[in-house]
Amino acid sequence: MTAEEAKRIILARHPEGMPTGEDLRIESMPLPKPAVNEMLLRVIYLSLDPYMRGRMSPARSYTKGVTPGDTMVGATIAEVMESNLAGFAPGDIVLSYSGWQTHALSDGKGVVKLDPSQAPVTTALGVLGMPGFTAYVGLLEHGRPKAGETVVVSAASGAVGQVVGQIAKIMGCRAVGIAGAEDKCRMVTEEFGFDAAVNYKEPDFRDRLKAACPSGIDIYFENVGGDVFRAVIPLLNDFARIPVCGRIAHYNDTDLPEGPDRLPQFMGLVLTKRLSVRGFIQFDHLDRMPDFRRDMAKWIREGKVHYREDIVQGIDNTVDAFRGLLTGRNRGKLIMQFANDPTK
Amino acid sequence: MTAEEAKRIILARHPEGMPTGEDLRIESMPLPKPAVNEMLLRVIYLSLDPYMRGRMSPARSYTKGVTPGDTMVGATIAEVMESNLAGFAPGDIVLSYSGWQTHALSDGKGVVKLDPSQAPVTTALGVLGMPGFTAYVGLLEHGRPKAGETVVVSAASGAVGQVVGQIAKIMGCRAVGIAGAEDKCRMVTEEFGFDAAVNYKEPDFRDRLKAACPSGIDIYFENVGGDVFRAVIPLLNDFARIPVCGRIAHYNDTDLPEGPDRLPQFMGLVLTKRLSVRGFIQFDHLDRMPDFRRDMAKWIREGKVHYREDIVQGIDNTVDAFRGLLTGRNRGKLIMQFANDPTK
Repeated sequence: MTAEEAKRIILARHPEGMPTGEDLRIESMPLPKPAVNEMLLRVIYLSLDPYMRGRMSPARSYTKGVTPGDTMVGATIAEVMESNLAGFAPGDIVLSYSGWQTHALSDGKGVVKLDPSQAPVTTALGVLGMPGFTAYVGLLEHGRPKAGETVVVSAASGAVGQVVGQIAKIMGCRAVGIAGAEDKCRMVTEEFGFDAAVNYKEPDFRDRLKAACPSGIDIYFENVGGDVFRAVIPLLNDFARIPVCGRIAHYNDTDLPEGPDRLPQFMGLVLTKRLSVRGFIQFDHLDRMPDFRRDMAKWIREGKVHYREDIVQGIDNTVDAFRGLLTGRNRGKLIMQFANDPTK
Repeated sequence: MTAEEAKRIILARHPEGMPTGEDLRIESMPLPKPAVNEMLLRVIYLSLDPYMRGRMSPARSYTKGVTPGDTMVGATIAEVMESNLAGFAPGDIVLSYSGWQTHALSDGKGVVKLDPSQAPVTTALGVLGMPGFTAYVGLLEHGRPKAGETVVVSAASGAVGQVVGQIAKIMGCRAVGIAGAEDKCRMVTEEFGFDAAVNYKEPDFRDRLKAACPSGIDIYFENVGGDVFRAVIPLLNDFARIPVCGRIAHYNDTDLPEGPDRLPQFMGLVLTKRLSVRGFIQFDHLDRMPDFRRDMAKWIREGKVHYREDIVQGIDNTVDAFRGLLTGRNRGKLIMQFANDPTK
């Protein structure tokens, strides 16, 4: 076979706050050997997503966390190196859930062969994958946009946010993005066609957000929490919907934030404005996956949905890139590349 | 005519915190004279409801507040004394929105004639009226109960809460009530047939609530807020629904409560547990009124829904009774009686 170097990143311990290289430790490993009914995958791309911070935590979340000592989990695009498995042959490009490592064994369960002639394979981690599907079900199922309504999305240049605003435009809504840098705001309006974008780091952010939403906010797609959420609340219209997809501003929280306690006031607004606040996880809605695949492929073909990827090279840079994701350093969907992409 | 004494209660000024007799001033008035196309009503019963605290406040709510100097608003059962209006004759018993006064003129708009042979007329203010309808739409539309689920309702012995639990039972759910006194808890289980009731004033309330909900909470019908809401949160199951109907613990709040700020943590649970939190006001759902009337009349006839009224005599006692409503002094649906009920 090959003398390739194999590496993986394990969760050495649960991080307190921002994860470090001590929490997520890189180690070399022997190149695994596939047994009968197994195949060996070489990971080309690893998706880095905010939800992964939850998997590093011992606190209850919507699914089991990673046990210290285990390899960090994550969606990957991989090339089959060796296969003892019917249906998979060396050179096949697959979507797998191989995690933060350069090589992995697989019994084929949950592995999907990709056709590189249909779309760039990285889109299976982004606009045509979990982040795109998250935007689709969150906005359509929970947001229920009607033409003419105003949709605001936070983390608007991110993997999910960029898709939310573009679907909102397709539905005839006004799309307003919130992001944390001027160039991200430009990306949101110029590349993704949002009607407006507002930088939450500007001192007059609240005024700008209000100006960008002259008819108030009908749907707030929540990715962030914190100050951004607090700025949105007073602009919500009666009957506004808040699909809660993420809260990246809080993923490193270690204590409850200082008071006053804003929960009672918020629940008061929920009542008087008849707000609908609903948390969702894309995997609860897999019945919508065929609709998503059909619609999104069509929208991309028609030039109605664009996407932007931020590809970082080398497994050694993974932890740093993930830290950057939590602080907004990436520009578009963050993807690690560990090996040459033979489809390019 | 008659030499009856006529009185009304005006909102003299916006209350700060708990309303007093200085905020809500009783005054005598001349007996009004109906003009052409008007009728004179003698108010027999006035409904007192927690939402009225909102009407006394200058803060934004879901509908216009009462202007200082004006008579306090509210639903009433009245007898027609004189009528210059086609379709209404002296002696008719009507449901009107005449407010906190003993007599009122009406042009007939929004006034509904009642048939005392069908049901006691007071039920039009309670189980067959706005509170019953609130319970019906909140639980069925927003709670979407499924047989076998656990429904928890706060202010369980109140006008809305008592109906919520009984509809939950009809839907095949486990019904658990939260109330603030031992006799209220007994009323909830013995008169209304809830499976369990828990007194939130007991020091081990949280443990008792947990014991009463061995399978967690699938629907929390929120009437109260405050400590009760905080005790419910950790028991919520994945996909739990929270119809937000009222927040009586906060209606007299003048400042934001002390920290820590619990809003971010709550939004975190909304996400990880995929909670659905939705405020509602019954008048947004009037399309369901015919269904409600049909179902509720049937349930009462079949003995599946019982109700309890707390009738206080005399307009001079109205402000005190309303203060009692905000502190939980009433037992069942609170109704003021200002005149003899000729249907009894």
